[in-house]
Amino acid sequence: MKKSLGAKTLSTTPVWVVGSYDQGGKPNVMTAAWVGICCSKPPCVTVSLRKATSTYGNIMARKSFTVSIPSEACVMDADYFGLVSGKDVDKFAVSGRTPIKSELVDAPYVAEFPLIIECRLLHNFEIGLHTMFVGEIMDVKADQEVLGEDGSLDVQKLSPVFFDSDSRQYFKIGGPLGKAFEVGMNTGKRASK
Amino acid sequence: MKKSLGAKTLSTTPVWVVGSYDQGGKPNVMTAAWVGICCSKPPCVTVSLRKATSTYGNIMARKSFTVSIPSEACVMDADYFGLVSGKDVDKFAVSGRTPIKSELVDAPYVAEFPLIIECRLLHNFEIGLHTMFVGEIMDVKADQEVLGEDGSLDVQKLSPVFFDSDSRQYFKIGGPLGKAFEVGMNTGKRASK
Repeated sequence: MKKSLGAKTLSTTPVWVVGSYDQGGKPNVMTAAWVGICCSKPPCVTVSLRKATSTYGNIMARKSFTVSIPSEACVMDADYFGLVSGKDVDKFAVSGRTPIKSELVDAPYVAEFPLIIECRLLHNFEIGLHTMFVGEIMDVKADQEVLGEDGSLDVQKLSPVFFDSDSRQYFKIGGPLGKAFEVGMNTGKRASK
Repeated sequence: MKKSLGAKTLSTTPVWVVGSYDQGGKPNVMTAAWVGICCSKPPCVTVSLRKATSTYGNIMARKSFTVSIPSEACVMDADYFGLVSGKDVDKFAVSGRTPIKSELVDAPYVAEFPLIIECRLLHNFEIGLHTMFVGEIMDVKADQEVLGEDGSLDVQKLSPVFFDSDSRQYFKIGGPLGKAFEVGMNTGKRASK
């Protein structure tokens, strides 16, 4: 018998840092956990933000944003970027992190974060407290240190951060559980005999 | 210097199993990784699906779906639910898992999965290959085994599964990295002195 926990946003979600420029060209970053991939063709991400954030206005004006994905080593910066508003402080200056202007979209990313996604705004949908932005992925860029020998991303080297909304804690990624589209094959085979 | 990996959907995302009924009332489940939370008030999830799936038609007709969140122990079932189509097989029958009719929405969930979310369809947005469904969370229900002593969700007991789209592997959750809205406080304090 399952126990009701109520109607709430209970999930463990990736932690992404959203980069944007304000009207004067000042770079800003904010941390978001209501994020994800939402389409394969064109490749798109979704990031949901409150209207009260600086980033909301920046994305609406510039039609661009980036996602900088923190590794475990960047968790303090990622948390800081979600604690304060770009309206009050220059988060890059305070944290000592470096904004890099994307060559593809009108937004900055965090140089010290190992994986970044450059997006142009495709849609903004009003859901409620949050506005859902859909950005088309124009490129993904990674530091050499998080790539495997074949040049593809090595998730365990990246060591991405997840946010648990119930305990309000960050978690690291754990070990592999098997290949997708493979470990479940026995289920069908076993039962179809 | 970051290396370009191209414009692709490169992320480590939660693995969710989406439950729905077809026109005849047959329960179906499919696994999705283009998922996430997209609003706090009302609490909402987003799940992106291709039109070719049975689940797409089921959600459009029934205006309801559930999310059953697999623990590490359910990874083979979760993979199987993404390997085959509900048009070809009865995935509940083949896997031996039990569909439970939600009392709140017109959709079934997987009894053996430890955490479930019951949703009514609020929006469907066409993005490209994928349609993004937004569902309002009507309730979250959990097995006692994944709750802590205070009755809230214990993520490490839940042991949710993540999908890495580049290596096409599943990963488990790792250990805690600290409290959100807390571990970053030193960044601001240190720099403001």
